[in-house]
Amino acid sequence: MDFSSKLLEQALDEMSQLPGIGKRTALRLVLHLLKQPTEQTDQLTKALQNLRKNIKLCRNCFNISDTELCEICSNTSRVSELVCVVEDIRDVMAIENTGQYRGHYHVLGGKISPMDGIGPSQLTIKPLVEKVKQGKIEEIIFALSSTLEGDTTNFYIFKQLEGTNIKTSTIARGISVGDELEYADEVTLGRSITNRVPFESSMKG
Amino acid sequence: MDFSSKLLEQALDEMSQLPGIGKRTALRLVLHLLKQPTEQTDQLTKALQNLRKNIKLCRNCFNISDTELCEICSNTSRVSELVCVVEDIRDVMAIENTGQYRGHYHVLGGKISPMDGIGPSQLTIKPLVEKVKQGKIEEIIFALSSTLEGDTTNFYIFKQLEGTNIKTSTIARGISVGDELEYADEVTLGRSITNRVPFESSMKG
Repeated sequence: MDFSSKLLEQALDEMSQLPGIGKRTALRLVLHLLKQPTEQTDQLTKALQNLRKNIKLCRNCFNISDTELCEICSNTSRVSELVCVVEDIRDVMAIENTGQYRGHYHVLGGKISPMDGIGPSQLTIKPLVEKVKQGKIEEIIFALSSTLEGDTTNFYIFKQLEGTNIKTSTIARGISVGDELEYADEVTLGRSITNRVPFESSMKG
Repeated sequence: MDFSSKLLEQALDEMSQLPGIGKRTALRLVLHLLKQPTEQTDQLTKALQNLRKNIKLCRNCFNISDTELCEICSNTSRVSELVCVVEDIRDVMAIENTGQYRGHYHVLGGKISPMDGIGPSQLTIKPLVEKVKQGKIEEIIFALSSTLEGDTTNFYIFKQLEGTNIKTSTIARGISVGDELEYADEVTLGRSITNRVPFESSMKG
């Protein structure tokens, strides 16, 4: 595309570096900003700058936080010995929204993925293993997505924890509540049969 | 959604005011920025600020431009008496990309749409009518989309031009070059038969 304006071109170049935003979408967004009062652009850019400059990672769980220790880790009514290992803040939010989990989290910041150049050293695996070795954790729940990368990451951490007598588990995979069996994929249905639960405990949730 | 960070929440609130960007998409974009070096956020916000503060509308055609008079209007090899009326810069770019148009443009900045609260006074219709009355234009080509709003806007401008002896036309609607007739919608096919062109002139393009 050929733009009549250098300013426009620069803005589009930057916008289209965001994931899932192509030149056309960027143009739509930028034209919207141009139709709005200058204040909206000011507020947007200030909010982004503020976030990027002042955001911290919680020193305990590495979740995104405004403070040194995040709200979850500093909440004394939560069980610090139970730790759920997740990929990023979106998973924390998803689990928090269930209202069923009262333990802590450990945010890895990604999954091991050689294709994307992400190795174990770029993730927060080392601090997790250290916390375990210091005896601060009793049980780890793995809650990474069940993809090749997720399984690799799970297995890598599991190997690192060998020799410690920590209890580990993964979240249950199975048919979604309310789903019809006939439309479920074979792998999920197979797992949900293998990992069946006693009838009484299925009534609790 | 419940966010653990006020900074994050503010950034998402601002991002999700952009059209087509919901809270989830905003979160994905913001998390991407957080994973990148601070410079990327700096460059993005600076480019947007620069654009919003320094961009001008061409004083002749109201297209987005870095200068008082846009590149097209200041190009003396173009025919200033032929003016194509379009909605916004995207249409200018689309027509420029064909390489087949050597006239000027007039950018309305939108279409008359009472549902969205856009009336004729918010568009650049008045300057267009004035240019016509001053005898600066010989022919106007209407190139708005053929929707209810586009047709309303065309008709409104057409009525404003009554009494002047200006030549007006609209771009041809018909079957796309290379399309199969059997898959065309009835309205388009109907129009392309009504507005058929002499065989010789169809061979030129």
